[in-house]
Amino acid sequence: MSHNTFGHLFRVTTFGESHGPALGCVVDGCPPNVRISLEQIQAYLDKRKPGQSRFTTQRREDDAVKILSGTMELADGLVTTGTPIAMLIENTDQRSKDYSEIEARYRPGHADYTYEAKYGIRDHRGGGRSSARETAARVAAGAIARRVIPNVTIRAALVSMGEIAIDRANWNWDEVDNNPFFCPDAKAAATMEGYLDGIRKAGSSIGATIEVVAEGVPAGWGAPVYGKLDADLAAALMSINAVKGVEIGDGMGVARLTGEQNADEMRMGNDGTPVFLANHAGGILGGISTGAPVVARFAVKPTSSILTPRKSIDRAGNEVEVSTKGRHDPCVGIRAVPIAEAMMACVLADHYLRHRGQVG
Amino acid sequence: MSHNTFGHLFRVTTFGESHGPALGCVVDGCPPNVRISLEQIQAYLDKRKPGQSRFTTQRREDDAVKILSGTMELADGLVTTGTPIAMLIENTDQRSKDYSEIEARYRPGHADYTYEAKYGIRDHRGGGRSSARETAARVAAGAIARRVIPNVTIRAALVSMGEIAIDRANWNWDEVDNNPFFCPDAKAAATMEGYLDGIRKAGSSIGATIEVVAEGVPAGWGAPVYGKLDADLAAALMSINAVKGVEIGDGMGVARLTGEQNADEMRMGNDGTPVFLANHAGGILGGISTGAPVVARFAVKPTSSILTPRKSIDRAGNEVEVSTKGRHDPCVGIRAVPIAEAMMACVLADHYLRHRGQVG
Amino acid sequence: MSHNTFGHLFRVTTFGESHGPALGCVVDGCPPNVRISLEQIQAYLDKRKPGQSRFTTQRREDDAVKILSGTMELADGLVTTGTPIAMLIENTDQRSKDYSEIEARYRPGHADYTYEAKYGIRDHRGGGRSSARETAARVAAGAIARRVIPNVTIRAALVSMGEIAIDRANWNWDEVDNNPFFCPDAKAAATMEGYLDGIRKAGSSIGATIEVVAEGVPAGWGAPVYGKLDADLAAALMSINAVKGVEIGDGMGVARLTGEQNADEMRMGNDGTPVFLANHAGGILGGISTGAPVVARFAVKPTSSILTPRKSIDRAGNEVEVSTKGRHDPCVGIRAVPIAEAMMACVLADHYLRHRGQVG
Amino acid sequence: MSHNTFGHLFRVTTFGESHGPALGCVVDGCPPNVRISLEQIQAYLDKRKPGQSRFTTQRREDDAVKILSGTMELADGLVTTGTPIAMLIENTDQRSKDYSEIEARYRPGHADYTYEAKYGIRDHRGGGRSSARETAARVAAGAIARRVIPNVTIRAALVSMGEIAIDRANWNWDEVDNNPFFCPDAKAAATMEGYLDGIRKAGSSIGATIEVVAEGVPAGWGAPVYGKLDADLAAALMSINAVKGVEIGDGMGVARLTGEQNADEMRMGNDGTPVFLANHAGGILGGISTGAPVVARFAVKPTSSILTPRKSIDRAGNEVEVSTKGRHDPCVGIRAVPIAEAMMACVLADHYLRHRGQVG
Repeated sequence: MSHNTFGHLFRVTTFGESHGPALGCVVDGCPPNVRISLEQIQAYLDKRKPGQSRFTTQRREDDAVKILSGTMELADGLVTTGTPIAMLIENTDQRSKDYSEIEARYRPGHADYTYEAKYGIRDHRGGGRSSARETAARVAAGAIARRVIPNVTIRAALVSMGEIAIDRANWNWDEVDNNPFFCPDAKAAATMEGYLDGIRKAGSSIGATIEVVAEGVPAGWGAPVYGKLDADLAAALMSINAVKGVEIGDGMGVARLTGEQNADEMRMGNDGTPVFLANHAGGILGGISTGAPVVARFAVKPTSSILTPRKSIDRAGNEVEVSTKGRHDPCVGIRAVPIAEAMMACVLADHYLRHRGQVG
Repeated sequence: MSHNTFGHLFRVTTFGESHGPALGCVVDGCPPNVRISLEQIQAYLDKRKPGQSRFTTQRREDDAVKILSGTMELADGLVTTGTPIAMLIENTDQRSKDYSEIEARYRPGHADYTYEAKYGIRDHRGGGRSSARETAARVAAGAIARRVIPNVTIRAALVSMGEIAIDRANWNWDEVDNNPFFCPDAKAAATMEGYLDGIRKAGSSIGATIEVVAEGVPAGWGAPVYGKLDADLAAALMSINAVKGVEIGDGMGVARLTGEQNADEMRMGNDGTPVFLANHAGGILGGISTGAPVVARFAVKPTSSILTPRKSIDRAGNEVEVSTKGRHDPCVGIRAVPIAEAMMACVLADHYLRHRGQVG
Repeated sequence: MSHNTFGHLFRVTTFGESHGPALGCVVDGCPPNVRISLEQIQAYLDKRKPGQSRFTTQRREDDAVKILSGTMELADGLVTTGTPIAMLIENTDQRSKDYSEIEARYRPGHADYTYEAKYGIRDHRGGGRSSARETAARVAAGAIARRVIPNVTIRAALVSMGEIAIDRANWNWDEVDNNPFFCPDAKAAATMEGYLDGIRKAGSSIGATIEVVAEGVPAGWGAPVYGKLDADLAAALMSINAVKGVEIGDGMGVARLTGEQNADEMRMGNDGTPVFLANHAGGILGGISTGAPVVARFAVKPTSSILTPRKSIDRAGNEVEVSTKGRHDPCVGIRAVPIAEAMMACVLADHYLRHRGQVG
Repeated sequence: MSHNTFGHLFRVTTFGESHGPALGCVVDGCPPNVRISLEQIQAYLDKRKPGQSRFTTQRREDDAVKILSGTMELADGLVTTGTPIAMLIENTDQRSKDYSEIEARYRPGHADYTYEAKYGIRDHRGGGRSSARETAARVAAGAIARRVIPNVTIRAALVSMGEIAIDRANWNWDEVDNNPFFCPDAKAAATMEGYLDGIRKAGSSIGATIEVVAEGVPAGWGAPVYGKLDADLAAALMSINAVKGVEIGDGMGVARLTGEQNADEMRMGNDGTPVFLANHAGGILGGISTGAPVVARFAVKPTSSILTPRKSIDRAGNEVEVSTKGRHDPCVGIRAVPIAEAMMACVLADHYLRHRGQVG
C-alpha cells in the first residue's frame, strides 16, 4: 500500500475530497473480458449512500457513478478490456458554509490537526480527503473486484453497536437488509433502533463492530511473509475511516486460548477436499487461505462530530471549545458495512491474481 | 507490502527457512551516515533468541549476525553508506530428524497444509519459511531502523497471557527485563511463572497479548488514505507469526465508546506545542501521527505444536492424529515482544523517510 | 513502473482511451503548498494538442483540463494540499465511424494485434488505450511536476526528421516555438517544411529524434542500482508511444569512444562547485546526477497509419490489405516534444522527493 | 524499479560492494517446483567472471555461488519452493590497497563524485556499490529466471567494439563462444583481437555495442502504458553499469524510416499463427510482445579507468590529475554480454508472471 493506491496486480487508486467537484477511482490491472454492470456498481454505492434512514447523515448525495474508461459495451453487455477503469462520482450536496467556523479549529478526534501538522494546509470543508466520502470510490472498485472472483461470496454485517451485541445464535444473513443497521440479528436490530435514536437525539455518537465473511475462497491464496493475506486484509480494513482494531478469526480472543482450543482440526470432506472442524483461524494459516471462510472483524470508533462542546485549540494556538452542528452519522459503523465488503473483495481479487501469477 | 519485502523507502526484504543454511535480510534505502553497531544489533537478537529460559524453545541458536554490505568501518565506528545493508544469520542447531514424521502430515493450526495447497511443495523441516525463525531477520532490520529515528523510544511488553492480564496501575517499564515474560507488572509476572509452568509441563500452550509503544514520534508522519500509519502498522504486526488481531489505541474497545468518551481533547502544552488530554486514538488520527505516543497491541495465538494428539490429514488424504514432541515455545507470545519493537521501528523509519520525501 | 502508474513518491496514474468519454490522470504524492495554475497546465496541453498546423492530425480536441481534487483556491492562487490531484480531459471530437472498418483488422505497426493477443479484446476506436491521446494526461502531470522542482529548466526539441538533422551549431532554444516542428535550428526547420509536406501529401509518414535537456539538476539525484536516474528516464521515455530507442548523453555513440574521449574531466568552478569540462555522460554517472545538464534523446518511429496498402491479417486469420485514410500525424515525433518534457519533469520530481526522503 | 530491487512478481534484490565480504541477491516470487541446478547457475557466472582472457580484468574471483534459501533438494534434483531464493557470492581477491590513493579523488567518468555528492560518504574500494561486481548477482538471478520461462531462448552477442562492427551476414550464434569477445562474426572477432590488444597495451579502453535476442516469447507479454515490455527492458538494460543507450528493434534508426519501411507486414504462418514479414519493431508493439523475436541493443561506454592522466578534483576541492593503474577491463562491454542475457531473462520472467496474473 502506498498513499492513495492499494493492491499489487488489482490496484485501486482513489482521489477526491468531500467538497471538491468529484471523487473517484482508477482500477488498474483488472483482467479483460470480465462482465460488469453499471447498475450493479450503482446498487453497491446506493447501499453505502448517506441519507437512507434517520440513522445516517442527512447529506443528500446521488452518488451516481460514471465509467470513463477500461470497458466496452458489447451487444450483450459491458465488459472490461484490461486497461484502467476510471470511475467518477460527482459531489452535489456540499453546503460548504456549514464548515466555515471550523476552518481554523481542530475538531477533537478528527484528522484536522494531523493533516495540518503534516501538510501545513488542509481542505477543511467536510473533512476534505479524510472524509468518509472517499469510501464511495472503494465501493465502486469493490463492485468490479467481486466480478473478478465470481465464485466468492462476500457479506458483511454489523455485530455490535455500543453496549448492544448480537446473539450469534440468531445470525441470519437475510436479516441484514431488513433493518437500517445491516444487523444479522433481528432482535438486536430492534433494540439498536431505540438505542441509537437516543444517541442521535442527544447529539452524541457511538462505536460499532463489523464482521465481514468471504465464502468460496480456495486454499492457497496469500503469500509469506509480508504479503500475507491477513496482513493485507488488516491494512485494508484499518485504512477505512475510524477503524481502530482488526481481527482475523478469533482475533484478540486468541490470547486466552490454549493450543488445544485454538488449532482447528482437519478431516477429509465427502467431496474429497479437506475440511476444518472449526475456524478459529478465520480461514487463514501462515498468511495463506485454508479453504474455510475468511472471517475478519473490525471496530469503528464513534463519530467525533458531536454536539457536546469539547476542548480543543485553533490554528493560532488559542484554546477553544468545539461542538459540531452539521449533518453527521450517529454511528458511522453502519455505513462501514458495504465498505468492508468492498475492501475484502479488492484484497481477495488482488491475491487471486497474484496467486495465479506466481503459481499459475 | 509484497511477498517478502515491506516498506517503501526503508525497505526490508527477508529470506531463509528454519532449517536451511542461513537466514537474513536486506535493508534498502537506509539513509547514509547512520551510526550503527554490530553489538547493538546482536543485543536485540539475543533478546529474541530461543533457549533463554525454560519458557522458550530449547533449540540453541547463537543467532550471530554478520553484516555483508552497506556499511563502512570508520575510525570511530560503523556507519551506513546508503547502499543496501545485507545481514546474515546462520542456522546451527537444526536437528532435522525431529521433523521427519511430519513430512507428509499437516499439523493442525500450522501453515503446513496451506503452503502445500499453494505451492504443491513445502519445506517441512521446522516449518520452513513459516517458522518464527524468520523473525530474527526482522529484529536485525529493526535495530537499524531505530538508528534512523534516534529520538523515538520504542518499547514493547507482554500485557496478558491466557487468563492472566496485567494491572495497568503496576506498569513499570523497568520490570520488563526482570522477568522471562517481558511483563511490565512484576506481580502478574510472578503469577505467570507458575501458570506457564503448568502449561509447559502439560505439553500445552497458551496465547498472549503484546503492547508496543513508540514515544517521541512527532505529529505528521503517515499519509492518507491507504498509506496510513495505522494501516501499515496493522499489516506489519499482523505479518508476525501467529498474530490474529491488531489494535491501535483503544482498539476493538472503541466499539463501546461514545463520541464524548472517544475524542481526545486538546490543549496547548507549556512548551507551546499541542497536547492531548487522553490518547484513545493511540497517537494516530486520519492515519497521521498526532505527537502523542503511538500505541499498538496485538494478540498471539498459542503455539499449535502441542503434545495432545489432534485430528488431521496427511498429504495422501488419510485421516491421522498429530502430536508434536519437538522443542517448542509454550507461549510464543513472549518472543514476539522484541519482534514487535522491530516492526514498529521499521514502519516508523519508513514513514519518517516518506514524510521527509513528500513534505521536506 | 507498473502497468498504468509510474513513479515512486511522485506517482502518476493515467487512464482513458482515445474514444471514451474522457481521459486523465491522478498525481499522488505531490508535496503540499506547491503553487500551480490551471492556465499554465493548459498552456502545456495546448502545445501538445493536435490540429495546430497542417503537420499534425486534424482531429480537433480542446484538451481542456479540469482539476477534480488535491488543490485549494487561496486568495492568491491555487495550491496543492498533498492529497491526490486528479485531472480530467474530455474527448470531444471522436468520429468513431472512421474506425469501423479496422475493427477486425490489425493495422501493421500498430498495437492492434498485440492488444488482442494479450487481452482477447480491444477497443479499436482510434487505437483505444494505445492512442497517443493518452499522452495528454502525461503533459498535465508534467506541468505539476515542473512546479515541484522550480529551479530546474526542462526543454525539448526535435533534432532530426527522417534524413534531415539539425546543425548543432545553429541550436537556438528561442527558435523552438517559431516553427511547427519544435526545431531549434531555423534553417533545418525551413527544410523540414517542404520535406514533410511531401510526405504528408503522399499519405506517408516519417520518424524523428527528440532531445530533452534538464538544466539546474543538482548533483546527487538518482540511486544505485535499479533506481538509477537514467534507468527511470529510459523507461519513462521508452513508454512514450512509438519510441524505439533512448540515449543518455552520447548514447549509442559511446560504443565508438575511447576512455580518454569519454570520461568528462572535472575542475573547480568559480563559485566553488565542481564543473565538468565536457558532458558525454549526459549529466548522469553511476545512475546519479552530476550537476551538469541531464541530456536524453529518443527516436520516434513513423506513424504506422499510412495510405499505402500494407499486408496484414484480420481477427479470423484472413489475409488482408490495410490502408488508413483517417486523420493522422505525418510525423508523430513532433508532438512528442512536449511529452518528453513532461516525462523528464515527472521523473526528476520523483527522484528529487526520493532523494530528499533518503538523504534529507 | 526501486533502488536495489527490480521486477514486480519475479523480483530481484541485490546487495554487496566490490570489496565487502560478499555480494548476492534475493529472488522473490519465483514459482514453486521450478527445476534449477547449482551447476547451471555457476556456468552462467563463469561466463561473466573476470580474468578469463587477457581482455578482461585480471582480478581473480571464483564467483562461487551458494544458495541459502528457497529451494529443496529432492531425489532427482533441486527445486524451488516458492519462497525467496537467496544466493551468496563471496569476494576473495580484493586487494584494497590498490585503491588507497583514489580514496579522496574522484576518477573522471566514474561514480565516485556522484555517490559522494549524494550520500556524503562512499565506499571507494573498487568502486563500492557502483562496481561491475554487482552484476554477478544479476547473472545468478537470471539463471533462475531462464528456468521460469524454459521455452524462451535468450542469447546475446557483442556486435561492435569501437570502430569495428560485425557484418550481420556473418552472424553465427555458434561463434559467440569461440572468441573472447562473445562476437557472432568470426572475421570481426579476429580483427578485434589485434585492435583491443593495442588499446589494452596503451592503457586505454573502448566502448562496445551488445545485442540481446529472446526467441520463443509468445504474443501478449507486456502491458500498457508504463508497464510496457520495452519500457521495462530499457530500464533493466540502462541499469547495467556503463550503459548509455538502449534500442528495441531498429532503435534510434527508426528516426530515418518512412511508415512504409517501418510497419512490419503480417501474414498467416503455416502453423496457423500470424507471422511478421519483418521485425523492425524488435518483437514489441504498443509495449506488448508480438511473437517475433524480442531484440534489444545497448551501448557500453569505455572503462573510465585508464592510464592517461585526466583532470579531476579531490574531496577537498583541489584540482588533481588522476590515472588508474589497477586491474581493469579494456572493454567492459565484453562482460556485459552474459549480464544482458540475465536482465532480459529477469524482465521476461516477470512479464510472464504478470501476464499470467492478469490474463490467466
